Amino acid sequence: MKPLCILLVGAFLALPAAYAADWRDEGVLYLNSSPRAVMHPVPVHAVTIGEGFWYARRKANVERSIPTMLQLLEANGVVDNFRRLSGRKNAPLRGPVYTDSDIYKWIEGAAFALQSQRDPALEKTIDALVDDILAAQEPSGYLHTHLSGDRAKDRFMQMTRNHELYCLGHMLQAGIAYYRATGNRRFLDGGIKFVDYLIANFGPAPKRPLLTGHPELELALAELYRTTGEHKYLDLAGYLLSGQETERLHLRPSETDYMFSGVPFTSRTQFVGHAVRAMYASSGATDYYLETGDAAYWKTLQTLWGDMTAHKMYITGGVGSRSEGEAFGEAYELPNAQAYTESCAAIGNLMWNFRMLAATGDARYTDVLERALYNGINSGMSLDGTLYCYRNPLASSGEKIRNAWYDTTCCPPNIERTLASLPGYFYATDKDGLWVHLYHNSDLDWHLENGVPLRVKQETGYPWKGRVTLTVSPARETEFALRLRIPGWSRKSEVRVNGKPVAGVAAGQYLLVKRNWKPGDQVTLDFSLEPELLASNPLVRENNHAAALQRGPLVYCLEQPDQKAPVEDLRLSDLSKPFVADFDPNLLEGVVVLRHPGEAFQQPLQDEPLYRPIALEERMKTKPVELSFIPYYAWANRGQYAMEVWVPLP
Amino acid sequence: MKPLCILLVGAFLALPAAYAADWRDEGVLYLNSSPRAVMHPVPVHAVTIGEGFWYARRKANVERSIPTMLQLLEANGVVDNFRRLSGRKNAPLRGPVYTDSDIYKWIEGAAFALQSQRDPALEKTIDALVDDILAAQEPSGYLHTHLSGDRAKDRFMQMTRNHELYCLGHMLQAGIAYYRATGNRRFLDGGIKFVDYLIANFGPAPKRPLLTGHPELELALAELYRTTGEHKYLDLAGYLLSGQETERLHLRPSETDYMFSGVPFTSRTQFVGHAVRAMYASSGATDYYLETGDAAYWKTLQTLWGDMTAHKMYITGGVGSRSEGEAFGEAYELPNAQAYTESCAAIGNLMWNFRMLAATGDARYTDVLERALYNGINSGMSLDGTLYCYRNPLASSGEKIRNAWYDTTCCPPNIERTLASLPGYFYATDKDGLWVHLYHNSDLDWHLENGVPLRVKQETGYPWKGRVTLTVSPARETEFALRLRIPGWSRKSEVRVNGKPVAGVAAGQYLLVKRNWKPGDQVTLDFSLEPELLASNPLVRENNHAAALQRGPLVYCLEQPDQKAPVEDLRLSDLSKPFVADFDPNLLEGVVVLRHPGEAFQQPLQDEPLYRPIALEERMKTKPVELSFIPYYAWANRGQYAMEVWVPLP
Repeated sequence: MKPLCILLVGAFLALPAAYAADWRDEGVLYLNSSPRAVMHPVPVHAVTIGEGFWYARRKANVERSIPTMLQLLEANGVVDNFRRLSGRKNAPLRGPVYTDSDIYKWIEGAAFALQSQRDPALEKTIDALVDDILAAQEPSGYLHTHLSGDRAKDRFMQMTRNHELYCLGHMLQAGIAYYRATGNRRFLDGGIKFVDYLIANFGPAPKRPLLTGHPELELALAELYRTTGEHKYLDLAGYLLSGQETERLHLRPSETDYMFSGVPFTSRTQFVGHAVRAMYASSGATDYYLETGDAAYWKTLQTLWGDMTAHKMYITGGVGSRSEGEAFGEAYELPNAQAYTESCAAIGNLMWNFRMLAATGDARYTDVLERALYNGINSGMSLDGTLYCYRNPLASSGEKIRNAWYDTTCCPPNIERTLASLPGYFYATDKDGLWVHLYHNSDLDWHLENGVPLRVKQETGYPWKGRVTLTVSPARETEFALRLRIPGWSRKSEVRVNGKPVAGVAAGQYLLVKRNWKPGDQVTLDFSLEPELLASNPLVRENNHAAALQRGPLVYCLEQPDQKAPVEDLRLSDLSKPFVADFDPNLLEGVVVLRHPGEAFQQPLQDEPLYRPIALEERMKTKPVELSFIPYYAWANRGQYAMEVWVPLP
Repeated sequence: MKPLCILLVGAFLALPAAYAADWRDEGVLYLNSSPRAVMHPVPVHAVTIGEGFWYARRKANVERSIPTMLQLLEANGVVDNFRRLSGRKNAPLRGPVYTDSDIYKWIEGAAFALQSQRDPALEKTIDALVDDILAAQEPSGYLHTHLSGDRAKDRFMQMTRNHELYCLGHMLQAGIAYYRATGNRRFLDGGIKFVDYLIANFGPAPKRPLLTGHPELELALAELYRTTGEHKYLDLAGYLLSGQETERLHLRPSETDYMFSGVPFTSRTQFVGHAVRAMYASSGATDYYLETGDAAYWKTLQTLWGDMTAHKMYITGGVGSRSEGEAFGEAYELPNAQAYTESCAAIGNLMWNFRMLAATGDARYTDVLERALYNGINSGMSLDGTLYCYRNPLASSGEKIRNAWYDTTCCPPNIERTLASLPGYFYATDKDGLWVHLYHNSDLDWHLENGVPLRVKQETGYPWKGRVTLTVSPARETEFALRLRIPGWSRKSEVRVNGKPVAGVAAGQYLLVKRNWKPGDQVTLDFSLEPELLASNPLVRENNHAAALQRGPLVYCLEQPDQKAPVEDLRLSDLSKPFVADFDPNLLEGVVVLRHPGEAFQQPLQDEPLYRPIALEERMKTKPVELSFIPYYAWANRGQYAMEVWVPLP
């Protein structure tokens, strides 16, 4: 199969900017014809993840999470909602109005898993689900299990909350992912049928107005355009992003703020409202920019990215501070115990930064992507792959944070699709050569854009160890550029090619190594994994006089089972002393534990008054204790315990 | 009139524990027959507030706030809702479901003003309002403008949210206050008619179940019992507090938590849910304890008071940290900029502590009462008496916090009734003598419980100055006990009687001075007004390494117009240096300004990154600036500016 695939790609590359002919070539994003894309992500199947950090997480995803989640979706009637509509089953309508999207997202996750490894049994399961879903689709193309029957009259009437287009977006993404896994277009064509119905009936006056009350369709439409080459899909995305229907839909500012939709995307100057909506809208807007080069979009995207990273992003890459409205807060409003930081929002952050990276090649976007991936997203699924976080707080007094099921179960299948698609985030090509974004034991089996087959083997203990060895093997000696990401967190990095140091290594940038590469050439990267204490901007008042610990891409925390005193009574001490790093293979499926001198208040703080003169407070006595930090993503896997990321300083 | 009044009281005192015969004797709470009351508040009319701090606030209340608020209530259709029902006016139903309570609370405020000073024009206005209100009352006694007509079928069906009993509670309180001001029972009798309807139809099975979805009726019923002597009203309060209808009403824990109602009050162990509901429920439960001595209630009240003061009360006396649900947060969840701290909740805190004080004579309750009064309540009305805070945050970036009108306008008339009733909080009597709770220029004209007329003149600059001179003038030389509150915040206090020091003065206690008092005896109290920096328990993470400034009962803040650099960039320095206190008669209608060395970051913090290594953060440069603190209550009276109570330490 592979040689054929490469031949087809070779044929395509002779027709630059044309519509791709082969579903096998299309990655998480298919940007080969996108005018503003400076790189083209490789397909998921081109990268095989080897042993190590992500191997275990992805195994839990494929072997435990994806199968058990389908059982839960069935048990909770999500698929029966479709069977009910088609008359295949007599079942009550269940779940919230947006629950169709949950099974779509599950299919997308399973389809990404198939992109890595075909599995006839899983394909049969999906085909049967697709059959049940499409049997419920109306001849017009319309499909939404909750807005049918008695509620059909509400269609397109309450777009601020009914999630019709949100569900369609996920249907399309699932259809595309399954098509890219198998070449089977049936589900994709079902989604297209609904989109074509929209295009026929909705749009600028005199057509009826349309709104994505929860942005999502925009990015799905962009990818549909990339998949089909049909410009009308991109145009519909542009119409939705244009927010031109504020008046026809009588939208209030409180609504358009919350929805991050309904006014021109290009009028936005800061993040407000529902965080997932905002991240998906920004992802869709970046897709639109990648295809159109519209400068107003680019300016807005840069402004928003600055607002997020300077004011509103947790150190875990999570966003959305407030439980109320699952929303962004004010600048510097980043509470820890009360953090909402929905898993879906961190995933949206990753999706958006992947697109910003594709538009620029700027490693600061990869840094944010990696931060969200290893921390705020990775925390969302338990180590065994059966429990999920909806919220991902940065401090806890031990409340229940992981659950097998949520009535609003958007996050679990979102994490599934992210982990399943992960190989597609590692590499991209451009006409000069190859971009390396992420590091992990892995094998790339792909080709340069000039058609020369290329294999790259990564050998590394990343993220636990700082050395990465790349064995670069073009099919024949070829001059091309290798762009190696130097993570922003690495205070000291060295790169060697066949043992010879390369100059110009800079943290937070891609190192360009252009040379004649011969099969078996070795690149050695050494990143500094020195644990580092980070401070917040003092305007994040809650983190005043406290520090967060990071080692490589991993944010650390104190969790109660590892401590000798209540977490809340602990603080750091002797900052001049180093952290001691030990890999413990038996703890939390193997993690590097970081130990450091600390101190604990002798009198539990719970016993102290709420307010008193500062002179009295300063006299509180402490005793020395050793602090043991574990990676944040691994917390809450041993029961319900207190946890803290931002630890007070002495 | 006065001599007659005293004669009547004398007659009553010959019948201890009996139902009082004269409306003129009844104060904010009428506890003369309450078995567990260790003191009996004097009536409002017995205390005349003289020049100074509260004089100006009360003048703004009576001359500006109360008249303009009635205009606004009329303009927003609140009274027309009643006229509509009676057919007196053809007007649409307007406002939220609980808006009847707003006009009731306004009447209560005006009635308290009348208790200080009769005013025929105002009485005529109230009589006309009462006439409009009672014309809408059904023959059964039922009255609720929103649950009438088409919605009458919803009566008592959605008690978790329809506020029927909440409105009735405010109707009763208004009726009682107006009766105590004028002897006019008409409005009170209207309320009683509704209550009697409830008693006839609702209660333990086989009657229909009843619930105060928003506690308030409980405390009104207790006061109705005290006013009428009818035990059935106390019994109804007890039934409501018993929370025995959880099952018959199918109440979920999330509902009973939020409502602080619907399960036995005595099953509560901590504050959760809607803060105003919780404060009103606790006030009502304390009233119930005062009448019954039920030990289970007392145990619960003490537990809850401990939870509030050790975990959940702002330094301003405000409570209710969360905007979502206007609710209490977790222990130590006390965000500043995001603080909700509704004015009504701080008022509820005062009401509750006044009752706890009456049950114990413990000055720690007076300390909390005074803290809420001077800060978290007092901030709720602008200096000119026309703008109100609903939220009372402890930090702000300058958002609009004061408004003339809110669709949910519970707070403005609540502040009005509190300020109007203030004289009633100053003194109480017991069989041994007189309790002095609050200090301000004022004249008490009342009598001891043995009937001896007593005048007490307070001369003081309190809260700006620490000296209070009491001239104690019983009509004739009489031995009695004077209990003088020594505020908990006064680090050094001295008390002299006719120049001679009194021993045993202790902060946070009542000083007992029992002696033969002769007309003209002078008591001089000297409290320390040394400004003090307070620290939070370190578990309030947001206040880590920050301090709040307090002088006497007043909490201070930094507001932008007084500073030489952005408030957010400021921090304290040179803590060993003293604060300089200056009374500025031209600033904010006259306040003591506190000045102290501080420093400002040279580079605005807004320009700094969100996260970076602590070593870099520690190198940020500052420049010295003088900090000028104003009392918290007076902020946001010069426009919209940044403000901060908890100021970072160096």
